[in-house]
Amino acid sequence: MAARIRTVHYGVGAIGSEIVRLAGARKDLKIVGAVDIAQDRAGKDLGLAAGLERRLGVSINARPETVLVPEGADVVIHSTRSSLTRVAPELQRCIEADMDVVSTCEELAYPWASHPRLARKLDELARQHAVSIVGTGVNPGFVMDTLALALTAPCQNVRRIRITRVVDSALRRIQLQRKTGASLTVEEFREKVALGTIRHVGLRESMLLVADALFGRLTRIEESIEPVVAAKPRRSQFFEVVTGKVAGVHQVVTAFVGDKEVIRLELEISIGAEDPRDAVLIEADPDIDMVIRGGVFGDTATAAIALNCIPRVLQAAPGLLSMKDLALVYNARRYEG
Amino acid sequence: MAARIRTVHYGVGAIGSEIVRLAGARKDLKIVGAVDIAQDRAGKDLGLAAGLERRLGVSINARPETVLVPEGADVVIHSTRSSLTRVAPELQRCIEADMDVVSTCEELAYPWASHPRLARKLDELARQHAVSIVGTGVNPGFVMDTLALALTAPCQNVRRIRITRVVDSALRRIQLQRKTGASLTVEEFREKVALGTIRHVGLRESMLLVADALFGRLTRIEESIEPVVAAKPRRSQFFEVVTGKVAGVHQVVTAFVGDKEVIRLELEISIGAEDPRDAVLIEADPDIDMVIRGGVFGDTATAAIALNCIPRVLQAAPGLLSMKDLALVYNARRYEG
Repeated sequence: MAARIRTVHYGVGAIGSEIVRLAGARKDLKIVGAVDIAQDRAGKDLGLAAGLERRLGVSINARPETVLVPEGADVVIHSTRSSLTRVAPELQRCIEADMDVVSTCEELAYPWASHPRLARKLDELARQHAVSIVGTGVNPGFVMDTLALALTAPCQNVRRIRITRVVDSALRRIQLQRKTGASLTVEEFREKVALGTIRHVGLRESMLLVADALFGRLTRIEESIEPVVAAKPRRSQFFEVVTGKVAGVHQVVTAFVGDKEVIRLELEISIGAEDPRDAVLIEADPDIDMVIRGGVFGDTATAAIALNCIPRVLQAAPGLLSMKDLALVYNARRYEG
Repeated sequence: MAARIRTVHYGVGAIGSEIVRLAGARKDLKIVGAVDIAQDRAGKDLGLAAGLERRLGVSINARPETVLVPEGADVVIHSTRSSLTRVAPELQRCIEADMDVVSTCEELAYPWASHPRLARKLDELARQHAVSIVGTGVNPGFVMDTLALALTAPCQNVRRIRITRVVDSALRRIQLQRKTGASLTVEEFREKVALGTIRHVGLRESMLLVADALFGRLTRIEESIEPVVAAKPRRSQFFEVVTGKVAGVHQVVTAFVGDKEVIRLELEISIGAEDPRDAVLIEADPDIDMVIRGGVFGDTATAAIALNCIPRVLQAAPGLLSMKDLALVYNARRYEG
């Protein structure tokens, strides 16, 4: 077997911890460092902090410059925030240490349209240092973009693509229920939408990734964020949603070429959502009508895909990449414990 | 837009003709040559021979050595036969002309296990000539292998994978109905299975591709080919299948690690098959339960995926590759007419 790939884990929050728990069980990876600026994590053993119930012999360091040193590791798994503007200095530091980067930053999934200057800067820096950097995750990164693209492989003349994800948040963490507006009034919900605090970050990025691959230039993009209002009481472990209150969010992005709608992404996350699923409908020759029944359960999937990307990022050409640029990503079971 | 990719079409049978019809409509491709040894095709205009209803200004040449010359084209789309042993000299000639190769030869989808020496030879030759060669198609090449691998991207701990394809052959060409045993008696069917004339070539290759990616070494492989017997009359445009006669074929390949079944591929092709679909069931964390309702219609899909692979093969590292080695394959609609 080839030498183990040395990983640094930048960010040990909810997703970062899940990544560490998975990485700790993989035979192809060797965890050599960890960074987190949170005061209550610094100095702790990474294994214990991530909930592994065993020590990994790697301390969490609050100073990235101590961990991110050339030759120190092969790849950084970065998982701190959704905003590319905020995490760009962190990514830059990883690149300057000559390390490939897999990040779960949602806006990094397709940054060229929303952050063109930053994207160019990261790309140039990555090329200078001969490393690759990619943003991934289950959504954005897979179910509403990469998977949909993969399904067009046997098609010609793709005319329109509709991607739907329905998540029953009752089965998920309280944070997800809260940030999708559970139990708010419709008015409160709309205020939070106006403030930008209710919004799934990454839906636009998924659309842009699909558009870039399939259609090229778009003429118009429309977005909407609406409440899912409970027509009868809905309940989770954490919330009682009475009739007329908000059970969750329904977010839609559509893209047009001329007057023709070519892409529609529809995401519903609500307590008690009916028929949870991931679906892709492709109007093409031949048509493709795909559904993943129950949907891809999100909490562990982002962690898994981040790790599954590692071998593909290591072999990729240098630069800032998107998921469509990587060789096929899959879960090589044989490397697991 | 980048310079057009120059293609040579090697084989102008049913699939080869479909490929030519699609290629003729693509703005990113320029057809520069065609080879077919069939006497009734040689000398004809490729467009007319392929059923395009317009001339392409390219004659079909019976002598490959005339068409396959260095600098003559960028890539050969090869579509002649299923048997790798038979087509190897053709592929070799393409490689020796310094051309990348996309082939629909079923056994080329994963040749390392069944034809290890030939695979090594083609790989070495391809590296010497700095070209890439890959076998693809809808099946093998996509629905029962690459797509299943792609679906493991958000998973960890893949324990078992079941892939099912059900095709209602009543909607397909008479050749497919005939070669899957339509209207035979069970005894006649079994004789043809024993002779090797009823068998979907590529099911084993799909399994081996999945196994190589996910599990590594297998301990046992089982294969079966059984008739689908009509319990009531079934009918297509070409056949009346009376009760008790054969409507089609049910072929299964299973793979084991130790005593544990880890992969099961099940293919039914029959007149009047119920619930035609492509389904993938992955036991992992999380589970994935995917279905493509109606299934991916095969006749045009193989042609489409062959063309959609071209940009990925051109950018791939030299050597003999499988679909899991290519960057994500998708249908770039913007290059179509």
